Amino acid sequence: VDTAKLKTTGFASLASMADAKAGFLARVPSSGKTEAIPLDASIDRVLANAISARWAIPPFEKSAMDGYAIMAADSFGASVQKPCVLQLEGDVAIGDVPSVTVSRGTGAKISTGAMIPAGADAVIKIEDTELANDRITFRLYRQIAPGGNIIQSGEDYKDGQPVLPAGRRIRPQDIGVLATLGFARLQVIARPTVTIFATGNELVELDGLRQDEDGLVDPRKAGSCKLIDSNRHAIAAFAGHAGGKVIRAAMLPDDEGEISEAIASAVASCDMVITTGGTSVGERDFIPAVVGKDYEILYHGIAMKPGAATLLGTAKGKPILGLSGFPVAAEIGMLYFGMPAIRKLAGETVLDPRTRVHARLADAVAVKGFGMTRLLRVAFDYGGVMGNELPKAIPVKLSGSGMQRSMVESDGFVEIGPDIEGYEAGDVVVVTLHPR
Amino acid sequence: VDTAKLKTTGFASLASMADAKAGFLARVPSSGKTEAIPLDASIDRVLANAISARWAIPPFEKSAMDGYAIMAADSFGASVQKPCVLQLEGDVAIGDVPSVTVSRGTGAKISTGAMIPAGADAVIKIEDTELANDRITFRLYRQIAPGGNIIQSGEDYKDGQPVLPAGRRIRPQDIGVLATLGFARLQVIARPTVTIFATGNELVELDGLRQDEDGLVDPRKAGSCKLIDSNRHAIAAFAGHAGGKVIRAAMLPDDEGEISEAIASAVASCDMVITTGGTSVGERDFIPAVVGKDYEILYHGIAMKPGAATLLGTAKGKPILGLSGFPVAAEIGMLYFGMPAIRKLAGETVLDPRTRVHARLADAVAVKGFGMTRLLRVAFDYGGVMGNELPKAIPVKLSGSGMQRSMVESDGFVEIGPDIEGYEAGDVVVVTLHPR
Repeated sequence: VDTAKLKTTGFASLASMADAKAGFLARVPSSGKTEAIPLDASIDRVLANAISARWAIPPFEKSAMDGYAIMAADSFGASVQKPCVLQLEGDVAIGDVPSVTVSRGTGAKISTGAMIPAGADAVIKIEDTELANDRITFRLYRQIAPGGNIIQSGEDYKDGQPVLPAGRRIRPQDIGVLATLGFARLQVIARPTVTIFATGNELVELDGLRQDEDGLVDPRKAGSCKLIDSNRHAIAAFAGHAGGKVIRAAMLPDDEGEISEAIASAVASCDMVITTGGTSVGERDFIPAVVGKDYEILYHGIAMKPGAATLLGTAKGKPILGLSGFPVAAEIGMLYFGMPAIRKLAGETVLDPRTRVHARLADAVAVKGFGMTRLLRVAFDYGGVMGNELPKAIPVKLSGSGMQRSMVESDGFVEIGPDIEGYEAGDVVVVTLHPR
Repeated sequence: VDTAKLKTTGFASLASMADAKAGFLARVPSSGKTEAIPLDASIDRVLANAISARWAIPPFEKSAMDGYAIMAADSFGASVQKPCVLQLEGDVAIGDVPSVTVSRGTGAKISTGAMIPAGADAVIKIEDTELANDRITFRLYRQIAPGGNIIQSGEDYKDGQPVLPAGRRIRPQDIGVLATLGFARLQVIARPTVTIFATGNELVELDGLRQDEDGLVDPRKAGSCKLIDSNRHAIAAFAGHAGGKVIRAAMLPDDEGEISEAIASAVASCDMVITTGGTSVGERDFIPAVVGKDYEILYHGIAMKPGAATLLGTAKGKPILGLSGFPVAAEIGMLYFGMPAIRKLAGETVLDPRTRVHARLADAVAVKGFGMTRLLRVAFDYGGVMGNELPKAIPVKLSGSGMQRSMVESDGFVEIGPDIEGYEAGDVVVVTLHPR
């Protein structure tokens, strides 16, 4: 990192974003705490143990069609011109154990999903047959190979086959297969607990102001230069999205003693501490002093924009994340460091699952901050995109780490590497999507 | 649709998937019910009303830097060789209303985020200045233009500017801006209520079987050809993911009278009814008969694979969705018809927000079912993908609408259009990602 170019950040030197992310996450422990929960409550939770098939799925041979279960050899040579005639031995309904046995020259009516009766090795579709008026015999108009229209036992999963790995975040379709395998309850990893502190003497609490009948508050009533602490609410929402359980979110004054005391109590009582504000190198930036004195600073000053004034630390083995007070910088720090840390605490194997989508830049982009990773906010535009063409990425033309609109109106980031000075319109870029 | 090619489905004719989706969704109403909830509970809920800025953001001019608030004209011509000297009038701390006024030849120390004092029209960075030993004057080593390092009032949002549209699903960053705007409570659209019925005489209920100490059940104890009803659990999880509130999920026997009665009671008490199983054209497929007799079938038999035996209907203005009993076909019907319908009921403007990602097929794919939209399940492989190369899409090599593994191990679908017979390895395809 060319420190001469970075003088404007106020940091003597900056760590590369990739190094900071890797180094910080390496120091985040994985939780060992697990809990048993009902299957239907397990969506988005993290599997504590690998799951294997407790029996074969399907557990028995079944019919893929409505038709007749037969011995395939009896169909050989059958055609519309020259049908074969077999004797009807009975019916197999779905959910019933077959009471009939199929032998040469016979067959049993069978419905889709029903268990194949003993002796049969194929099912001929109802459309390729005709039941005689006597209802004692039926004709085959087509031949079928052994195994035809039979779903084999174990075709989906063999008995004992791995189904889901430990550390997997559970999706709806996973709940389906877990139900099939008889998991009425599941062992999942306990949600890591998170405390969030916002600092800043200009801030007032949303919940501390008088609401009108519509639930609206007005910070100007607290003073003409007061602002509502919005970071705490956004960061709590991102923390919950990553699987964290926010057990406390509070505001702290710009006072080193009070900050130190509050962080100590949070470190003692939860799995991760996140602060916003007070992380830069100014007179009232107390977070680096507190973390440096009481705990360990891993990285302070990161070659990224917005977000240079992010602090990554560790406190008695627990991650401590000092986010900027600027909303966009705080949210970016949360996306790149905070959410992966929560996922690691939560035992997840995939720490940053954001989707990466290729797109074509709609406009040229000239970027400042050479030597830093710049996080350009872009919105997708699918208008006029044909067939397999890439979607267009429209740069959200807002600079500044305080511009909340740039996060609200964008779909993701183009991560502009430290050595890139800009893009031409039409360049292909990779967009890292915001969590959704 | 070439019906000759489609004979295997047992349907006389099939609607195109796009027509069925559009026609069904056009008949789904948008809920008018709203409720007020606390901001911190609003993640993933749907905004009932458009939100505009209640005041400018930021509401006042503030400093983007630690430095001195000055009149820019006083800096003109300043350089390291030839600094200008100004008189220090006082300090402006963040969160305080400035008590000083800046005039020609003077300046005030100011911290990042603090309100610009009257008279000042620029902030010169602390690094470009030096405080004299007397602490009464300070030097400027650089000139600055008017407006420099000042964040203008309204730079993020002007007073009254639209912020979020009605029908928007709330993201974490939206919660941030809503907090800034003083929304302690929000009007959101009430979650639509959904009833799910699973039919099939081969099914037993997960919750109806005796659990061992680990919460495991074994359907084989209920009979050697019994299966646990897994669809109900997976479909409920997908419904919840889309914003629905599953108020009842139950199993029904394959009995037309009981099914008719249960659906009537659900139609009377909730916003949407979903069934699984019994939607094909066999003897025990009672859903089409019940919906056709008591309500209105919009589409039955859709040119898609899996999922041809999906029924789309309307019952007293409420959507009714008859999903296949095959797990994969049921999940696909839920993804393409059920979840968009729930989102429309929930007042969302984006009905199918699944991400579409370009990828390169790792293997050739030969597809059957010409004339139908085939939903190929693929998994991403980023191994060996360099720079801006597209990720690889690995076809999950499982056919059959019963293969749950194909949904569990895949990341999304390649929607293979009705007139496509296959792909070569290396072809670029668009993958529609599973909800996550």
